[in-house]
Amino acid sequence: MNEDEKYMREALNEAKAALKEDEIPIGAVVVSDGRIIGRGHNLTETLHDVTAHAEMQAITAAEEYLGGKYLNQCTLYVTIEPCVMCAGAIGWSQLGRLVYGAADEKRGYTRYAPDALHPKTVVVRGVLEEEAAEMMKEFFKGKR
Amino acid sequence: MNEDEKYMREALNEAKAALKEDEIPIGAVVVSDGRIIGRGHNLTETLHDVTAHAEMQAITAAEEYLGGKYLNQCTLYVTIEPCVMCAGAIGWSQLGRLVYGAADEKRGYTRYAPDALHPKTVVVRGVLEEEAAEMMKEFFKGKR
Repeated sequence: MNEDEKYMREALNEAKAALKEDEIPIGAVVVSDGRIIGRGHNLTETLHDVTAHAEMQAITAAEEYLGGKYLNQCTLYVTIEPCVMCAGAIGWSQLGRLVYGAADEKRGYTRYAPDALHPKTVVVRGVLEEEAAEMMKEFFKGKR
Repeated sequence: MNEDEKYMREALNEAKAALKEDEIPIGAVVVSDGRIIGRGHNLTETLHDVTAHAEMQAITAAEEYLGGKYLNQCTLYVTIEPCVMCAGAIGWSQLGRLVYGAADEKRGYTRYAPDALHPKTVVVRGVLEEEAAEMMKEFFKGKR
């Protein structure tokens, strides 16, 4: 298991935590220097808050830990492609590296705001994407 | 003074509060049924948090007040055109009406994510825009 898979597994664990709370199962972690400094999972229903996406919480936590608002030395792992809102936050943070699992063709930022990230942010796609996508599929199947 | 100017004045008051804390002066309020149910001003430096934009805080506050995540019966007033992140949040909230002051040609959503809002959201631009723009100009002049 490589480094990216190791941390994506942590993000998947966060997604599982969301699932347990009957939330859309998306999870995220922020890593700096081999250490997880922020975590989050989707809590939009529980908190009645559209801003409570996994990435937003992980970014807020990481910035609080660092005491600064730039994440240029960090990697954000998230199980599903970020939406426009989260991509905007990632852009403001000047994130060093974004690693995501499955694409979100309906709501992903690459469709609505392809230039939202900072130009220096490196993007890696598709890490453990089957597991991330499968969790989403199961969740929405249960909702029908 | 019409209704929109009245509430934009409240958003401008929030922007002034940001200015006092040496933050980029942007303010927002959410109005439902003639009542302000959420307020916010930019606090990204104070909180070391890129997500702490005026709109994000006003939306979170309004949704908490309502106990639900949809703002389709609400109007959000914000002194400056929302960025991609905030437009994404506004999109998720299915906001009824967005009223903003001055355009943000560099970072505004209309440049980066013109389709980020919900298709039913009514957008009104330019309300008290001179005051909003002037406050920004003064702030950045002081920074040079």
